[in-house]
Amino acid sequence: MKTLGVLGGGQLARMMALAGYPLGIKVIAYEPTDANSASDVTEVMRGRFDDEVKLKEFAQSVDVVTIETENIPVDTARYVSQFAKFCPSLQALEIAQDRLLEKQYLNKLNIKTTEFMDITSESDLSVGVEKLGLPCVLKTRRFGYDGKGQYWLRHQEDIAKAWQQLGGQPLILEAAIDFDFEISVIGVRDAQGNIKVYPITENEHRDGVLHISKVLDNQNLQQQASDHIQSLMSHLNYVGVLTVELFSMRGELIANEIAPRVHNSGHWTIDGAVTSQFENHLRAVLGLSLGDVGCRGHAAMMNCLGAMPKLDTVLAASSQARYHCYGKSARAGRKVGHINLCVDSATTLSEQLQRLEATTF
Amino acid sequence: MKTLGVLGGGQLARMMALAGYPLGIKVIAYEPTDANSASDVTEVMRGRFDDEVKLKEFAQSVDVVTIETENIPVDTARYVSQFAKFCPSLQALEIAQDRLLEKQYLNKLNIKTTEFMDITSESDLSVGVEKLGLPCVLKTRRFGYDGKGQYWLRHQEDIAKAWQQLGGQPLILEAAIDFDFEISVIGVRDAQGNIKVYPITENEHRDGVLHISKVLDNQNLQQQASDHIQSLMSHLNYVGVLTVELFSMRGELIANEIAPRVHNSGHWTIDGAVTSQFENHLRAVLGLSLGDVGCRGHAAMMNCLGAMPKLDTVLAASSQARYHCYGKSARAGRKVGHINLCVDSATTLSEQLQRLEATTF
Repeated sequence: MKTLGVLGGGQLARMMALAGYPLGIKVIAYEPTDANSASDVTEVMRGRFDDEVKLKEFAQSVDVVTIETENIPVDTARYVSQFAKFCPSLQALEIAQDRLLEKQYLNKLNIKTTEFMDITSESDLSVGVEKLGLPCVLKTRRFGYDGKGQYWLRHQEDIAKAWQQLGGQPLILEAAIDFDFEISVIGVRDAQGNIKVYPITENEHRDGVLHISKVLDNQNLQQQASDHIQSLMSHLNYVGVLTVELFSMRGELIANEIAPRVHNSGHWTIDGAVTSQFENHLRAVLGLSLGDVGCRGHAAMMNCLGAMPKLDTVLAASSQARYHCYGKSARAGRKVGHINLCVDSATTLSEQLQRLEATTF
Repeated sequence: MKTLGVLGGGQLARMMALAGYPLGIKVIAYEPTDANSASDVTEVMRGRFDDEVKLKEFAQSVDVVTIETENIPVDTARYVSQFAKFCPSLQALEIAQDRLLEKQYLNKLNIKTTEFMDITSESDLSVGVEKLGLPCVLKTRRFGYDGKGQYWLRHQEDIAKAWQQLGGQPLILEAAIDFDFEISVIGVRDAQGNIKVYPITENEHRDGVLHISKVLDNQNLQQQASDHIQSLMSHLNYVGVLTVELFSMRGELIANEIAPRVHNSGHWTIDGAVTSQFENHLRAVLGLSLGDVGCRGHAAMMNCLGAMPKLDTVLAASSQARYHCYGKSARAGRKVGHINLCVDSATTLSEQLQRLEATTF
């Protein structure tokens, strides 16, 4: 039996473990906290990301090590890669952890991003605001997610305030972009270099956090997104699932960020695609053939934040709703689960999303 | 969190457990042997089916108890029903365990069966052969499955041989039936009496064991099968998934046997239906609303007997193949897993089934 190690024991590791069972693949997670999302469904080793003894034991007990978050220290990944194959790659992890390296890498591959500047001082910031114009957004280069570690500058006076709040760490200033909507594209590349790209999704956020991802039937954007992600995966010699978030602006895509992992905007694939992103990630990193990524209808995912809506409320609201909880206790703003839909028409999808939203949130 | 207890720890309990995780439902199995199908994926309590102390502990640790096989002693089910709700029902279990009671009950509901006779002596058998004609089949009333516990009589001399082999236990003699093909119908009934019926499947056997179940689009047979199973579930005040195997003979259905549980011929529903039979069984017995039972394309399941074909051989043969292993070691004739397909056309389905069969078996 093949065994996959996952650095991180949250919901993504949990869903990888559930995808593994039918294939006879065992997933073992490594998690520093007492998080139970993965441990509810599979074996979890508890240890810090700098505990070399435990990490070595973990890596030696599995065939391949992968990640469920890009916030795993690169040193941790480099260390375990001495004892087990590490996927997707150290380079992809390094790039995805740093907004500056990420945008530079995207531009090198001729993938458009918003304009940006490396900021190391308050005077850098003044120059940057001059150059990129207001409004613009100052971000930490590392460890930002879901709108955290960001400061929007709208007036000259914001320069001092932004610096006060975020200064003293590596920063990037990004020009504002007047986009129409955000999309995600998820691709998977196997060890032989074969690539499959899922249908793109349109993403709707609430308070900076993903609320709904809906499969988007738009050939122009699909083609651009597929070209970009194929270019990225090939150049990175990437193995596994990769996600890119992009802005659509008057029919053109502007890359926002990359996630070297399965992604929240791909959870619809569990019920809406022939092969889920979780299963395809396992297949890719364990040297197996990739599965069909086609969509089986009109599909969408709605995040559950804070607390799961009651199970029977959801099931009673729609006989087609697919309920996915992560075993987490309630806490304001926390991603505790999601609900998938995959139905016969776009109209039915909209109606059911509205009904679920009205009934359960 | 709701907890379901399953008497039996084989692949059906395993697949119920996997269906439960996304819903936040915990499945605990009770298994007398060291079988690992369920224990690979969830908690299993080991104990004999007559160990009252362990059974009581088991039943008290769950909300509802159900079964994964009709060969659970009725006494065991009756005993646990003192400490937890038991589903589907003691009556359904009693009937399904006994081919004579089963056929009598079906006939009482005006559901046709083959002609049959209760056999308690060799002279009964002679009278029976006279009445039902040759060929006919002598079966044990209890604990027969997959062609075991049966003797086909083709000549007068077979009477003595059949009696020698099977005599001394409760028997039933059944007339031969010149059927065109076998189908299954799977229904689910919730605690409020709501019923949903899955699309019927045509079943192909090899050496008496199910080989392929393929969803059959035949409105006439679907209607008859649905009527029969609805009648059965309503009269039994049944809660959970029920399966009926029937013979199709010149457009008319003749009931063969009932299984008061999720069934091998319904494994296609994991990938081919909106809601799998496993999830719908959990929903029904735990008092939740039922899920949509519609088929999402052209679907079929192929059993893997003896040993699983190699994972990558299957995945490479078809990017749409869904591989389901049960974690069992290889043994001749043993059901160790299945492969599902759900594709866009009947032609593609036939082609892929043939390719999988050629590649993997």
